[in-house]
Amino acid sequence: MTTHDLEAQGRAVKAAAAVLAQSSDEQRRGVLTFVAERLESSVEELLAVNAHDVANYRESGPGRDRLVLTPGRVASMAQALRDVANAPDPLFERIDANVRPNGLRVERVRVPLGVIGVVYENRPNVTSDVAGLCVRSGNAAFLRGSSSALETNRFLVSLWREALEKESLPVAAVSLVEETSHETAVAFMQLSDVLDCLIPRGGPSLIAAMREHARVPYVLDGDGNCHVYVDASADLAMALAIVKNAKTSRPGVCNAAETLLVHADVAASFLTDLDPALADVELRGDERTRKIIARALPASDEDYATEFLDLILAIKVVDSLDEAIEHVARYGTGHSEAIVTEDRASAAAWVRRVDAAAVLVNTSTRFIDGGELGLGGEVGISTQKLHARGPMGLRELTCLKWVVQGEGQIR
Amino acid sequence: MTTHDLEAQGRAVKAAAAVLAQSSDEQRRGVLTFVAERLESSVEELLAVNAHDVANYRESGPGRDRLVLTPGRVASMAQALRDVANAPDPLFERIDANVRPNGLRVERVRVPLGVIGVVYENRPNVTSDVAGLCVRSGNAAFLRGSSSALETNRFLVSLWREALEKESLPVAAVSLVEETSHETAVAFMQLSDVLDCLIPRGGPSLIAAMREHARVPYVLDGDGNCHVYVDASADLAMALAIVKNAKTSRPGVCNAAETLLVHADVAASFLTDLDPALADVELRGDERTRKIIARALPASDEDYATEFLDLILAIKVVDSLDEAIEHVARYGTGHSEAIVTEDRASAAAWVRRVDAAAVLVNTSTRFIDGGELGLGGEVGISTQKLHARGPMGLRELTCLKWVVQGEGQIR
Repeated sequence: MTTHDLEAQGRAVKAAAAVLAQSSDEQRRGVLTFVAERLESSVEELLAVNAHDVANYRESGPGRDRLVLTPGRVASMAQALRDVANAPDPLFERIDANVRPNGLRVERVRVPLGVIGVVYENRPNVTSDVAGLCVRSGNAAFLRGSSSALETNRFLVSLWREALEKESLPVAAVSLVEETSHETAVAFMQLSDVLDCLIPRGGPSLIAAMREHARVPYVLDGDGNCHVYVDASADLAMALAIVKNAKTSRPGVCNAAETLLVHADVAASFLTDLDPALADVELRGDERTRKIIARALPASDEDYATEFLDLILAIKVVDSLDEAIEHVARYGTGHSEAIVTEDRASAAAWVRRVDAAAVLVNTSTRFIDGGELGLGGEVGISTQKLHARGPMGLRELTCLKWVVQGEGQIR
Repeated sequence: MTTHDLEAQGRAVKAAAAVLAQSSDEQRRGVLTFVAERLESSVEELLAVNAHDVANYRESGPGRDRLVLTPGRVASMAQALRDVANAPDPLFERIDANVRPNGLRVERVRVPLGVIGVVYENRPNVTSDVAGLCVRSGNAAFLRGSSSALETNRFLVSLWREALEKESLPVAAVSLVEETSHETAVAFMQLSDVLDCLIPRGGPSLIAAMREHARVPYVLDGDGNCHVYVDASADLAMALAIVKNAKTSRPGVCNAAETLLVHADVAASFLTDLDPALADVELRGDERTRKIIARALPASDEDYATEFLDLILAIKVVDSLDEAIEHVARYGTGHSEAIVTEDRASAAAWVRRVDAAAVLVNTSTRFIDGGELGLGGEVGISTQKLHARGPMGLRELTCLKWVVQGEGQIR
């Protein structure tokens, strides 16, 4: 594929977006419902195509698992589409309607962004989730997945095209970039006449490439170096359950905890209980931690700055809530930050002073997820402040258009 | 100033933003009110400093007028600050509070973006307006004005620092980049650890530099190639008043009209009246226009694509509403697009189908302005869809933070 081909494909996606923006709630729901049905009716064919991608996969690491589809994963994809189909229409909501002193009637109306570009890695469910959220919100989805998942993604996109055609909508509204070279990825990030919003879902190298090459507005789905702070007043049993859940329930995801901060007043008691409870987790602590947990390795500055995405936990004993907040300000990535405390003032200070997409009190960072927060899925979790912060659902795929109506007013 | 100095200044601005984010409504209002008073009490000194900048100004064109302060302009700056001070606090509004099925209490709270960077040209009122909107919304303002306005901007920023100090807030919350080389501008656009949002206010060369060099999230304050479409059913007297206002009331601003589209059914009558009414405007039309208006020059494709920012109007006769909408889709820049019509269906189609920051019915494009729409000023007018579209006021300088409170829930 040449850059010329990519631009031509982009123009088709953009034209499709303009039609989709004018489609009815019923049509858009119809597309998602139909794809959900087709996922179920063609599950065997899909798994066979996916098995081919998996057989060709040569790398080690967690990438292989992410690539694999199972009957259960396909069923989840179908269910997610039904949930999004049943969510209320995010479009054409009227906001802040008012009449100006000169009689002008002013309001804002929620409309689609247009073309959403997503660059992502192996997981084929992203193809389905993103296409679902985009189409439901009247946006075209322009997808650039990984080469490893190409056959699977092609098959999934063919189901979307079938569904779009059935609803008399342009098939280019869900399009896949089938050429997966680095060159094409860079050209994709520079389609400023096509992409209204680009969302990179990937690791630090993808984020760095975005910062370097992107020429279109983007929302960064960045790293999650998430903390749990156990305050002096914490319910220590609750704290242990939360830390264990945040660290071990799914260590490879961005809302998993990476560092535990614990107040000096409760450190001895809490860390003594933590040690056996996290027997399968490698612990890396400061000096005070290591006096309590003999097996803990020394923690470096780099450890505190690292999103391990693994069964490794950095630990630091702090002398105050202020020190905990400062540590988070220094090392955090603005994702999800939790405090465990029975003290209302500490909770309020945490909520107000910690600068992150999400702050949590007495619960696990793992809840910062579009589905868990009631958004019906997510196209990514924004760690920047512009446009959207935290999980991006249907409403985060829209913008507001000003509508001003008069009877001849001039200025 | 070296890049190193700029980064050091940036760190100070960022630290100030963190303090400002925790300040009270009263403190933030106090800063603006105090600056308004000081603008009035030191108007003579300010005008003298400004006269020095003007005397050193060597270029021709509209830049000189934009640079000049007058007692009236200073009074307007002070009044704008009082209006913004009196606007309701945009911070800490609670949004979408709800309880999830597992008992988690979830809400979003409106918080400042952090550090707002603005790159702009001669107009010193931008310094005052932007600082006012930023401080009112709890954001630090990091300003990079033009070298021509440097003395004036320095004086203005000194008033802000006086006011911040009086309210016990860090003076770096309003900071000026005093080195105005191209090199520093590029380094400024790449302060990814400092700037939460960058807003370029300038012409096509600044926008191109932003797309090329920026490494931070930005909102484009882009060109306004705005259209007025006079429908077959228009009240032609109203249409004439609107076109005249949109074109001539202030031709150098982005919400001025640049192209008139007129339906063939009313073209002869409307254009015959328009000709003398816009005697001081150069008209450039298609063949059908030129048959009606003898003095009109031929309009090229480039004319239809140009934001003249001058007393020049391109004209095209169209055969249908569809043709008008297609013309706007092809040549428009997504700023402000008006229809004049007495037909409800035409108005509704225009509102729904035209893709722009603002669509207007029976009124002038000149109303697309933060003050006129009730935002109490604006830091710019966004022509992109991400984050904010159209005039950006206080609320557009905020983002939402997720707050999740539980009693030990784990996932």
